[in-house]
Formats: sequence, structure tokens, C-alpha cells
Amino acid sequence: MTDEKNSYLFPADRLKDFSTQVFMHFGIFEADARQAADVLAKSDLRGIDSHGVARLHTYVDMLELGRINPKPNIKIVREKASVATVDGDNGLGLIVGPKANEIAMDKAETYGSGWVGVCNSNHFGIAGYYPLKALERDLIGWAMTNSTKLVAPLWGAERMLGTNPMAIAFPGYKEPPIVIDMATSAVAFGKIEIALRKKTEIPRGWIIDREGRDTTHPQDMITGGAQLPLGFEREMGGHKGYCLASMVDILCCVLSGANWGPFAPPFFVNQEMPARSVGKGIGHFFGAMQIDGFIDKDEFKKQIDDWIHVFRKTKPAPGTNGPLIPGDPEREAEVLRSQAGIPLIKPVVDDLLNISRKTGIPLDVESLNP
Amino acid sequence: MTDEKNSYLFPADRLKDFSTQVFMHFGIFEADARQAADVLAKSDLRGIDSHGVARLHTYVDMLELGRINPKPNIKIVREKASVATVDGDNGLGLIVGPKANEIAMDKAETYGSGWVGVCNSNHFGIAGYYPLKALERDLIGWAMTNSTKLVAPLWGAERMLGTNPMAIAFPGYKEPPIVIDMATSAVAFGKIEIALRKKTEIPRGWIIDREGRDTTHPQDMITGGAQLPLGFEREMGGHKGYCLASMVDILCCVLSGANWGPFAPPFFVNQEMPARSVGKGIGHFFGAMQIDGFIDKDEFKKQIDDWIHVFRKTKPAPGTNGPLIPGDPEREAEVLRSQAGIPLIKPVVDDLLNISRKTGIPLDVESLNP
Repeated sequence: MTDEKNSYLFPADRLKDFSTQVFMHFGIFEADARQAADVLAKSDLRGIDSHGVARLHTYVDMLELGRINPKPNIKIVREKASVATVDGDNGLGLIVGPKANEIAMDKAETYGSGWVGVCNSNHFGIAGYYPLKALERDLIGWAMTNSTKLVAPLWGAERMLGTNPMAIAFPGYKEPPIVIDMATSAVAFGKIEIALRKKTEIPRGWIIDREGRDTTHPQDMITGGAQLPLGFEREMGGHKGYCLASMVDILCCVLSGANWGPFAPPFFVNQEMPARSVGKGIGHFFGAMQIDGFIDKDEFKKQIDDWIHVFRKTKPAPGTNGPLIPGDPEREAEVLRSQAGIPLIKPVVDDLLNISRKTGIPLDVESLNP
Repeated sequence: MTDEKNSYLFPADRLKDFSTQVFMHFGIFEADARQAADVLAKSDLRGIDSHGVARLHTYVDMLELGRINPKPNIKIVREKASVATVDGDNGLGLIVGPKANEIAMDKAETYGSGWVGVCNSNHFGIAGYYPLKALERDLIGWAMTNSTKLVAPLWGAERMLGTNPMAIAFPGYKEPPIVIDMATSAVAFGKIEIALRKKTEIPRGWIIDREGRDTTHPQDMITGGAQLPLGFEREMGGHKGYCLASMVDILCCVLSGANWGPFAPPFFVNQEMPARSVGKGIGHFFGAMQIDGFIDKDEFKKQIDDWIHVFRKTKPAPGTNGPLIPGDPEREAEVLRSQAGIPLIKPVVDDLLNISRKTGIPLDVESLNP
């Protein structure tokens, strides 16, 4: 989360309108632009600053260079009752993802479940966005994506996998939903970036240096190091994090015909293109399950409420207030930020002003206090 | 894996026949008994000693006490095209699991995917057994189960979740399949048992004591401590392991109507029954996906081969031979043990001899050298 004291507070809608207009400036249809802006806005609202408007400039860079197709013809290329593969036609992941997720949800309502692999896409924002959409239709939603290589497999000394997140959400009855959204690496890359900015050490187990050695210096990541998978070493289950990242990679890419493993195309324009292409673009995997196909929907939701109550009453570990329920921090951020606005640090505001100058789309910053 | 030097080497088939006859002795139909014995045998062959015949006495204890129904009427209680819920009628998980898994696979062949929640079951052996069956039908297989509480949620000081494993497998073309089978706890309980037997310390991060404090003494687990989830502390992603265990718990139990979280009935007869019952028995969740619904099957398998080749060539971390492919150790054990036999340590052999005396089913140990 952003250091809110040194931040500009933007009303969420103002940022969303700005993103929408920026996307439209690059030839994206209005409905698609609104959709893409909605994914970014949800990320900012939920406190996942790294995946919100802070990334708008990266999408803009790609659109400017013609590396992303602003008017993709997103289509199903293969299908059977409850499953399908979607080709995203090199569109923004923020547009391709929601369309493919909708196909999975429609299938779930017809066949009890729907599973959609996606190839030829680009980064799709926060994985958690997609199961949140499923909740609106009272479905259990799943989402995964691969991403540019950053993570070494256990016992490897080079980047071979993305931080490959997975998300899933379950609706409650009176309680808010349980929302899981997690990278399969030990930590998010953003935490290493923060240490770099603050010039602090990081814990052993987050990264290795370019020779594959343990290190606590975040700058080793910049000079050819790699992140470690969840569990980080054999003794602590590092093979499990590697297994999860592999599972996400195979479901998202091998199953859909996208670029798997180290061949995922880069997200940033200044990153090197992989030596080989083994498929099309990056890949996602969406799932939706209709609760009523398994159990009475209200019974399920009431049991989820009970689950939440029981887990909230867990005896707390010393020095803590006890376990959270998955999704608690993001929901609390959303409540707060819907009211107070989205805090953006100066470098992010500067990026947005730069986009504003470039596109001629106004962004009123004057009225805000840093 | 067993210390093979101090072990009796049993031909795998001899153990499988013994288990089959033992199950039949307790009134289980022959076909079901063979099925149950097959799950245990597969575990022993694949080097997962804790889940093979070493557990036969536990199943026997439960059958003797009438706590497990030897002739269950396993049935679908709710269904929609690609999904279903199965009631295991309190049968052996080793019988209920394979039947429910078959339903998921049948659905996958008709609807592209099949997803089956199971309630009213008991422990089902290794999770990996089920996706291995899916591979025989050229499907991608998934399996999860809850289990008796052993694991604390992050920031909790008591046992609330099982070690809740998940498994998934993908077929190769010329290469062997990729098989992922992992508990969502930092380590398997068996590793703590080994430390107890050897009276050695364990790494920080495996367990907490009864007050929720970090500890390296394995005996703290016996006196009311709890295991920690994969990632073990906030800084290393302990919330992710907790999220995964919660996901497995909800899919297996809340969705099927089984006992979730701390209310899972115990596996061992001497363990305390939970204070509440919130469903029926323990729960599983099976999935199967037909590859052809997403992509040409051979194309998928050839890409899996390529994935394996690329990952085997990863630059190795210092002091290692480089990353393994998920499933390597188990497959190597299976090749070895199919030839050489299953090594069983004396306490396990004594348990089997005890079962032999009790049931009158012979077990020839004389001809084997310890």
C-alpha cells in the first residue's frame, strides 16, 4: 500500500475516467476502454497499487509502439460444452480477460461449470478482479495468468517462470465473500522495489543473485538475480511454490497455446524479447462453478458465514490480533478508498501528467493536496 | 522415504494381496477391497511410505470399531452436466474417492470437464493417485481433500485446518507426465514424526507450540502445538499457504456438505472427536478436463515434452543438480520399488503381523531379510 501521507488523493472516478479516455485515445472502443479502466480502478480501490493506474503508462507505451492491438477480434477457437479456448488477438489483457471470464461464467450457468484458456493476450491486471465478477453472478470464480519471467524454479539459478498468480472467491450470505488472490512467488515483486527505493536489506528467501546464491541485497535482483517461489528452499516447501507456478503456467499457456515459462513476452517495452516463441502472447485460465450444481446455494453461503465466524475466533498467535479472512485487507482498503480517494505517490502522478500532455486528455491535479 | 538398510523388502504384489484380503475380512466386497489396496500400494510404490500399508492398521481400527461402513451405497446426490456432489455413505475414502473420481472423468469425456465434490467420506490415501488415474484416460486430473486438523492459520495459535493436499497431473508425449501432489502445510506431518523418533530439532517455521510461539522442538507438536502453513510467516507468504488450505477446505467440504476446518473427524481412533459436526464425514474434490476441448491433444503433449526439456536445462543453483520436474522423485521410486520391492521398517511390519494374527490372513515375513 502507498505511503498515504506523501500522496495525492484522487477521487476513484476521476482516475477511471482519465484511464478510459486514454485508452480511447489509442483507438480502443469506448465500452472496451471503460472495461479496461474498471480493472485498473478495482486494483487501486483494493489497495493493490502496483496493478492500478500506476501501470497505465506501461499499457500506453505498448499501445504507442503498436505492440498491442486496440481493436482485437476476440474469439473462441475451440470449444466443448463446459470448456473453451479463446484467442485474444493480441488485445489488452484488461479487455480480453473480462470477455473470456464471461464465457466461463455463461458456461457455468448452462453446464454447472465453465473453464476457459486464453492465448494471444497481454497482462490482465489483478487476478482477483475476475472472481469478483463471478461473485456478482453468484458463482465461484477462478482466475490465473502467467507473466514475464522473474522467478527461478527450486534449485534453479535463473528466471524461468512469472510470479503466476491464482485467485478464487466464494460468496458469503451476510458476511462479505472470501477472496483469495496470491502470487505463487514468495513475495510480490513490488516488495523488492520498495526495498530498492528505501535502500534496505530484504529477508533471505525472497531472491537469489545471478549465480543462484542466497542474498539479502535487493539490487541483486536488478543485476540478473531471480525471485524465489513460495517456500523458497526445499526444507520449507520451495518445491511446492515451484509446483504451483508450474501448474499456473501449464493451465494458462500450454493448454491454450500461449508462450509458457521463460518465453512469456515482456510487459515493459525496455525488457528483452525471449529468444524463442512457443505460442501466442501470454495466457490466462478462467473458471466458474455454479454453486447450485453442487449444493443449495443459500446453504453454501450460510456455511461460508459460519466458516468465517469460526476462523475469526481462532486463538490469536502472540503479538497478533488473530487470523484474517482471505480478502479482508483488500475489502477494508476498498471501503476506505471509495470514500477518501486513491492515494498516488508523486512518481505515479508525474507519469499520469506525462500521459496527459502526450494525449491532450486533461488530468486535474491542481485541486488536490499532496 | 524409508531407511532402506534397516527394512524388510516386500514384493509389492504380496502387500497388495494382503491388504485386499484384510479389507475383505471386514466385509468389503472383493472389487472394492482390490481398489482400496491399489491406492495403498500405489503410495508405497511411489515412495510415500506414510500413506501406504503403514496406514492399514488405522483403517482396520476404524473398520473394527464400526466407524467406517464396509458396504457403502455411494451415490450422486446432486448433479448438473459437468458437476456433481457424491455422498460416500461413510465408506472407506479408498473406495469412495476412486468412484467419485470416475464420475468426474466420465463427465469430462462428455462435457469437456467434470468436477465432483464428495461428502461423508474418510481418508482417501495419496491425492496423487487420482490424477494418475485421469492420465490413463488422457485427461488432466485434479484432486484435493481435507483432513484432521493439524495446521494453524497464519497468526493463529491453534489447529484449525488439515494439511489439505492438492494434486494435478498433465500427460507428456514421449516424456513421463508432470505430477504435482503437495500438502498445503510447510511440511508433511511425517517429517515431524521422524524428528521425534530421532530426537532432533526441526527448522523454525514448521510448527508452533501450544501458545502459538515459534519452536524448533518437535515434541511441542505432541503437547498441543500446530503445524504452520506453507510460507509459515507473513514476510515469507504464510498467508498464501493459509489461503491454499482454506481453498481446499471450502471446495472439499463447504461445497459438498462435509465437515470443514476444525470439525473434520479424526483419522485415528484415539483422537478426540470435534465438539461440533457441521456436515457429513470428510470431503474431497475431484476434477478432470479433456485436453481436446481446449487444444489438440498431441500438440499439448508435445509442448509438455518441450516444457520438461526446457526446465531440465535450467542453470542449476550452486550445490544442486538443477530443478526437478514435478513427479520425478515419485516416478523414480516407482521404477526402483516395482523391481526391488517395498521397504518396510520393523514397526510397520509388526503392525502388519498384528493384523495377520487378528484376521488369520497369512503374511510371509520369514522369507525376507531385514
